[in-house]
Amino acid sequence: MSENLSFFTNSDWDAIEVIDPRLATLVPAEPDSLYGPIREVLQAGGKRIRPFLTLLATDVERNSGTLHDSDEAALNAACAVEFLHTFTLVHDDIMDNAATRRGRPTVYAAYGTSAAILSGDALIALANEALARITSPNLGQMMAEFGLGFRCVCEGQALDKAFENRDTIRVAEYLEMIDLKTAKIIELAAVLGSVAGGGRFIKPLRSFAHHLGLAFQINDDLLDLIGDERTFGKTSGGDILEGKRTFLFAAVMEGYTSLAGDDRNLIDRIRDRQAILEDIPRVRVLLMRLGVLEHARAAAAEETRCAEASLGAIPESPARERLREFGRSLLGRQR
Amino acid sequence: MSENLSFFTNSDWDAIEVIDPRLATLVPAEPDSLYGPIREVLQAGGKRIRPFLTLLATDVERNSGTLHDSDEAALNAACAVEFLHTFTLVHDDIMDNAATRRGRPTVYAAYGTSAAILSGDALIALANEALARITSPNLGQMMAEFGLGFRCVCEGQALDKAFENRDTIRVAEYLEMIDLKTAKIIELAAVLGSVAGGGRFIKPLRSFAHHLGLAFQINDDLLDLIGDERTFGKTSGGDILEGKRTFLFAAVMEGYTSLAGDDRNLIDRIRDRQAILEDIPRVRVLLMRLGVLEHARAAAAEETRCAEASLGAIPESPARERLREFGRSLLGRQR
Repeated sequence: MSENLSFFTNSDWDAIEVIDPRLATLVPAEPDSLYGPIREVLQAGGKRIRPFLTLLATDVERNSGTLHDSDEAALNAACAVEFLHTFTLVHDDIMDNAATRRGRPTVYAAYGTSAAILSGDALIALANEALARITSPNLGQMMAEFGLGFRCVCEGQALDKAFENRDTIRVAEYLEMIDLKTAKIIELAAVLGSVAGGGRFIKPLRSFAHHLGLAFQINDDLLDLIGDERTFGKTSGGDILEGKRTFLFAAVMEGYTSLAGDDRNLIDRIRDRQAILEDIPRVRVLLMRLGVLEHARAAAAEETRCAEASLGAIPESPARERLREFGRSLLGRQR
Repeated sequence: MSENLSFFTNSDWDAIEVIDPRLATLVPAEPDSLYGPIREVLQAGGKRIRPFLTLLATDVERNSGTLHDSDEAALNAACAVEFLHTFTLVHDDIMDNAATRRGRPTVYAAYGTSAAILSGDALIALANEALARITSPNLGQMMAEFGLGFRCVCEGQALDKAFENRDTIRVAEYLEMIDLKTAKIIELAAVLGSVAGGGRFIKPLRSFAHHLGLAFQINDDLLDLIGDERTFGKTSGGDILEGKRTFLFAAVMEGYTSLAGDDRNLIDRIRDRQAILEDIPRVRVLLMRLGVLEHARAAAAEETRCAEASLGAIPESPARERLREFGRSLLGRQR
């Protein structure tokens, strides 16, 4: 099997070539009403960031530079993580009443609520089955990490939904939410890869992924307002128009009492989900003037620094450097 | 811990006293928006049939007559099965647009679609965490059984939803659906208990639970029309009014072409979900005349016979007799 895995010495994103066929073998054919939508959403252009991180983490543990047959554990764990991630997209799209994702209709929009609930549920069953294929003596540890990570993702989504009904949130609350909703699954990806490879560097790998996940989400929030629409792939200012509770929202609300006049009115309209497209340039100027953009940039930079610093606890190796490069490339791709 | 488990020599349903405190310890406190609805639905009067079957199956394997500390595996597996079962109720209630269950508002009705989706999701995470607490070398096998059982339940629900949109279904299709939707989780309960106890009798225990599950569902369909409302606890004929695709519906549709006049009109109205309360007595008479009630009775009796026969492959023991009694009591309680 090793010859099929030469991708590992090529560019990062060839991971898709290993992960995607494996994912496909794990999805049953029938009934099509259940697995058809799952196949479609899996083929909808995911970048396989999380499963690739799993494989990279295993490689750091082994420091062998290539994957071997014995990395069945890593491959199955990588698929479990991707199924879990895909599940979150499918169920979140119902809760967000989302019509499209990555330019395609969501499962929810295309097939309705029941099919989307069931597709998400079955994705978790597939994740469980992928994990169950692992014959490592560390399966119990991997299961515990998976269960915890999965539960945290649910908690994060619950907080996110609760924040929607609140007029204000604090930055610390926001960071707790994205830690649970976004960072924990990235952490899980690294941790499962680590355990599959022996778990010697589980602590620095966990820390690396945790900080990387936070940096990723804060960057995402920032780029929604100031990113290039073409490279970022979303409508600039979409979060503002939706009144989403983001890092920027939390940061601006922490200084809310010192706002007055037009500034306060503008923020009120964002909070009350009444902002319009014409407001976006004014929001950019205001958030820059208030130092909120700089606050977000500094927070993302600090998380990025912490992520890189975590790698210091791992002896230098080509695998470690690939992991560092993966992190930079992940954050760089956002721009 | 053994002293707490003396329930095992008492009446069957004291299982609740062991299972419920264990379930409660596995549900985190916060965030309440996520775990509050979960605590409520767990406390809504479930009879813990499935987790009790898990404990009984372990006892058959050990043939010790009591549970011991070493049955942590059985207890955790029992909780995983109950979480899985509860998850199916919570998500099915969304898909069925159900307002009440066991006389209380469903999570869906009380808290809305998003909260119900998330509660169900988190119940699976809790099931995964319960399984991960098992330190048995057979954890991989238990995980594989859990993943498969969970996936089958999703497939069964997908078939059930698909049947709703069909004018006719065959009895064989119906049996496949309830095998997946209802029987597989009962089978899982017995199988996990078996594996937790060593797995020597996994084949007869699986077969026992499979046939028991089918008998249970066919009985349930029958009793909806001819059961005593007070003891059965549901409105008699509710399935007819909803046009549900049950065993009775499938059986009557297999003879549809030979129906004529008023008989055919009545069945058409059931199929088209236009039957009214006043139709119920006529439906009873018609289904009796057509031999459909007898068909259902015979099918349930045959499954019951197969379940009991499965026990023949297990050497006689008090534990085996308790299991037999459990089966009889389960089916008997439906009347």
